Amino acid sequence: MHLDELTTPALLIDHAALERNLDTMAAAWPGLRLRPHVKAHKSTELARSQAAHGHRAFTAATVREVAGMAAAGLGDDLLLANEVVDLSGLTPVVESGARVTVAVDSDVIARAAAAAGIGEVLVDVNVGLPRCGCPPEDAGRLADLCRSLGLSVRGVMGYEGHLMSVTDPAERAPQTDECMDRLRIAHGLVGGDVISGGGTGTWRTNHYVTELQAGSYPLMDTAYVGLTDVPFEQSLTILATVISVSPGGWLVADAGLKALSLDHGNPSIVGAQVLYCSDEHVVFVMDDGVPTPAVGDRIRVLPSHVDPTCALHESFHVVDDAGAVLDEWPIDLRGW
Amino acid sequence: MHLDELTTPALLIDHAALERNLDTMAAAWPGLRLRPHVKAHKSTELARSQAAHGHRAFTAATVREVAGMAAAGLGDDLLLANEVVDLSGLTPVVESGARVTVAVDSDVIARAAAAAGIGEVLVDVNVGLPRCGCPPEDAGRLADLCRSLGLSVRGVMGYEGHLMSVTDPAERAPQTDECMDRLRIAHGLVGGDVISGGGTGTWRTNHYVTELQAGSYPLMDTAYVGLTDVPFEQSLTILATVISVSPGGWLVADAGLKALSLDHGNPSIVGAQVLYCSDEHVVFVMDDGVPTPAVGDRIRVLPSHVDPTCALHESFHVVDDAGAVLDEWPIDLRGW
Repeated sequence: MHLDELTTPALLIDHAALERNLDTMAAAWPGLRLRPHVKAHKSTELARSQAAHGHRAFTAATVREVAGMAAAGLGDDLLLANEVVDLSGLTPVVESGARVTVAVDSDVIARAAAAAGIGEVLVDVNVGLPRCGCPPEDAGRLADLCRSLGLSVRGVMGYEGHLMSVTDPAERAPQTDECMDRLRIAHGLVGGDVISGGGTGTWRTNHYVTELQAGSYPLMDTAYVGLTDVPFEQSLTILATVISVSPGGWLVADAGLKALSLDHGNPSIVGAQVLYCSDEHVVFVMDDGVPTPAVGDRIRVLPSHVDPTCALHESFHVVDDAGAVLDEWPIDLRGW
Repeated sequence: MHLDELTTPALLIDHAALERNLDTMAAAWPGLRLRPHVKAHKSTELARSQAAHGHRAFTAATVREVAGMAAAGLGDDLLLANEVVDLSGLTPVVESGARVTVAVDSDVIARAAAAAGIGEVLVDVNVGLPRCGCPPEDAGRLADLCRSLGLSVRGVMGYEGHLMSVTDPAERAPQTDECMDRLRIAHGLVGGDVISGGGTGTWRTNHYVTELQAGSYPLMDTAYVGLTDVPFEQSLTILATVISVSPGGWLVADAGLKALSLDHGNPSIVGAQVLYCSDEHVVFVMDDGVPTPAVGDRIRVLPSHVDPTCALHESFHVVDDAGAVLDEWPIDLRGW
């Protein structure tokens, strides 16, 4: 099948660009040094490509992601790097033989992990992003509580998510160090072999973690454009059809709010300026000198944020440079 | 089942509030005077509730919505109120006996409708929103082209979507009239019994259309709050669990960008201020004097925009005032 035969809007993955991204990351963070985050793509087939590049431990954000990865045979070492109060859905996953570790930042979550029969935890530490994670100075107490509940404490995690968008590496590097100083304090109180954290945006500036939780690097998005030390390519695009061309000068294509997320701003179209998106539409004007497409022509829309965009679709269509559709990968880890 | 047993995040519909909304609208726009838009909720079960209130004609935005409504036995009179270039998916729907009408704003779409064996069209007219729709003065030519292709032209449609957010009815009313003046010109050139348009925001200010295409009124969202002449209640909320409470003063619940859309701004939480959302998280601070929930407590999050929020979920959970889950309605019209 050629991509021209796909119903639009459709998520496309440029297979060659994906492979280059996977190669680049695997060279810098090989094997278990990388714990790819599946929340970005929610696809066991894409995770299988990451496993083929040597990574057998994965990060997840939901119970369904952990359960789906285990069911797909990718359960060697799964980290639920998020606080979940009801962990009962993981009991059968653990019983099936998958290795499951969960993040813990409070007594409630620690007790939930023990009650669900989960054997291993990481203490989740707040390293500067105002979100989850205990204060570094509380990490030792929490680790002791976990041990008293029969949980094995593998170490610590801390995510410097607020630094992913700091464009200048010369600023981002010392800020990453400051965050990791907080994680270092916690690790000193907790112990364990695992220091997990970081992301695609700090793949070059985080020198402390034992494993990087990068999620965006296979697909990428326009929010990461401008990070000069983050060379991964935008392998993900949305194929859209021009459905209306106005004499007023604007055009409309069929990739709107149900096909992409605006939380990081409007999507981009090469050779055009996006005016706005509505439920089923992206409205844009062509740049000067760029030929205007006709109704029925197909264009590519670049999402500004991969993760919630993927969550809106049923599958990826993997295409080659000639536009042949090589494969369809279900986005099978959606939902909760 | 009680809603406390649901996995979060979960979409809840307050059944009594939904019924009040349906009653209020059906009293003002009874029977075929209303053509409810299913793009807002994408659920054939919710559409069935609308049908039970007397509305047997529906509006849709995608081929899948039209096909799904027909398959659910709700195919008396389905309008695809959006330009779609590849209409071949509707051929079997028409052959199955459903009545399907499609919007047409260009020659290409007219020919696509004829090629797909669709018998009836409305000429889609631009009434001021810079999106789809032909200029009013081109509507007659386009209708003639449609007729020459063997299509029956039922009339015109025009959507004044840019007025839905004009808060003051005293401003919105004359602006609606201006838009409808454009539709009136087009209708004079096209003819036909159907003049379709309007939405929840103009349910009181649009006095011209023969049928109102309202979609948001059953569920509503915070984007409509402040329209004093739009009394529909927010029957849709997102049930979320508090997963982390920071000594820094902020709280985190598990309804993020994959559970709600930010295109109309942050969601709301009663008694709190939302700071931001990330993929799996909403981060907020409590208002002064409001008790701080604990980890594990459940809260309600009010989405700012219903349509793309529903498109992220698999189902609605219909609940009564006591929190009993009365039913689960699949959001079965998602995708394309």
